[in-house]
Amino acid sequence: MKKVGVILAGCGVYDGSEIHEAVLTLLYLDRAGAEIHCFAPDKDQMHVVNHATGQPAEGEKRNTLVESARIARGEIKPLSQLNLDNLDAIIFPGGFGAAKNLCSFAVDGDRCDIDPEVAAVIQDAAARKKVVGAICISPVVVARALRDSGKKPELTIGTDKATGDALAVLKAKPVSATVSEIVVDKENKIVTTPAYMLGSRITEVAAGIENLVRKVVEMA
Amino acid sequence: MKKVGVILAGCGVYDGSEIHEAVLTLLYLDRAGAEIHCFAPDKDQMHVVNHATGQPAEGEKRNTLVESARIARGEIKPLSQLNLDNLDAIIFPGGFGAAKNLCSFAVDGDRCDIDPEVAAVIQDAAARKKVVGAICISPVVVARALRDSGKKPELTIGTDKATGDALAVLKAKPVSATVSEIVVDKENKIVTTPAYMLGSRITEVAAGIENLVRKVVEMA
Repeated sequence: MKKVGVILAGCGVYDGSEIHEAVLTLLYLDRAGAEIHCFAPDKDQMHVVNHATGQPAEGEKRNTLVESARIARGEIKPLSQLNLDNLDAIIFPGGFGAAKNLCSFAVDGDRCDIDPEVAAVIQDAAARKKVVGAICISPVVVARALRDSGKKPELTIGTDKATGDALAVLKAKPVSATVSEIVVDKENKIVTTPAYMLGSRITEVAAGIENLVRKVVEMA
Repeated sequence: MKKVGVILAGCGVYDGSEIHEAVLTLLYLDRAGAEIHCFAPDKDQMHVVNHATGQPAEGEKRNTLVESARIARGEIKPLSQLNLDNLDAIIFPGGFGAAKNLCSFAVDGDRCDIDPEVAAVIQDAAARKKVVGAICISPVVVARALRDSGKKPELTIGTDKATGDALAVLKAKPVSATVSEIVVDKENKIVTTPAYMLGSRITEVAAGIENLVRKVVEMA
């Protein structure tokens, strides 16, 4: 049985993990017979967004791990406890949380910083040839983590020109893909799919995530 | 194209809608070609639960509509704006939110109250022969809404004896079912499935919800 870590970044598309992408990742991992282990950084979110209005909720604070636990039904550990000895692969669902809480791409673009725990996990996975899956905007997190590694990973965030250009500045190679497609970097063992970077319907997003999960588990 | 209302109760199994059940409902509705309209009551949740610890978050307040919007990616309206003229069916995902924010079953058991807007929608649906789907614990909301109607609907919450007994006190007829099964009350046009009342894996829960959604859309 393949053991796969799912790294969450909160709960909700505008300030956390995109919920549909995260749940579909869990669904297809379970269907593939993988053992699922959820993790999230134990730190405050960048901010809280009222998802009914799309506006920041001034003065409100939420913790990334505590909110991510909603998606994981309480079965989650702090990212600091992730040990790659016990995992065959890791997957990052998308949502603004990946670009706000795992790195600062949403604010700083191609000059973003990255959470040190997140960077360490991705760099360690690369060094040990563990498989990494990244959905939607999450490939920017992977690119930022590997920016100074000389690896130049092939990644997709769909067809968005500005984000693709940013990937190139982060020393990755952006590859166009449709919502149901995946891009597989065999050498670096990284699988990516655009999901809601391109999709407008959950069915489309599900198709790409199903393909990604199947490939991640197969390569693991 | 069938038009289906999905009535949410927050975002997270312990104080809102069970996220997996809600997302799977949206997935299978979209796959069935249904037009989806999400709603939630615009009122404070009963309370907020820290899903990492399972303990109530003292002093914290969250609004049911605003949190439900996380699952709906912002595409949601207050329940007060639900108009059955524009819908063929309604579905209630489960989670403690159904038993805390839509009615008070989690606190008061078979002596529970029900939110007046929720009661009106279910009673109106019954009067107009619109199809109602209810997942996990949500059949108690339907039973409470129809308690004084003389309808005695056939509903499942799986096999839990205490909850089944409560359904009987609420003048419904509890029917046992496995996690992948649905119970169809043809006369009252109500479809129910146990989901996480019985299931421990998302794949099992998905099977029951897929069956429920297919039947709701077929009957609508």
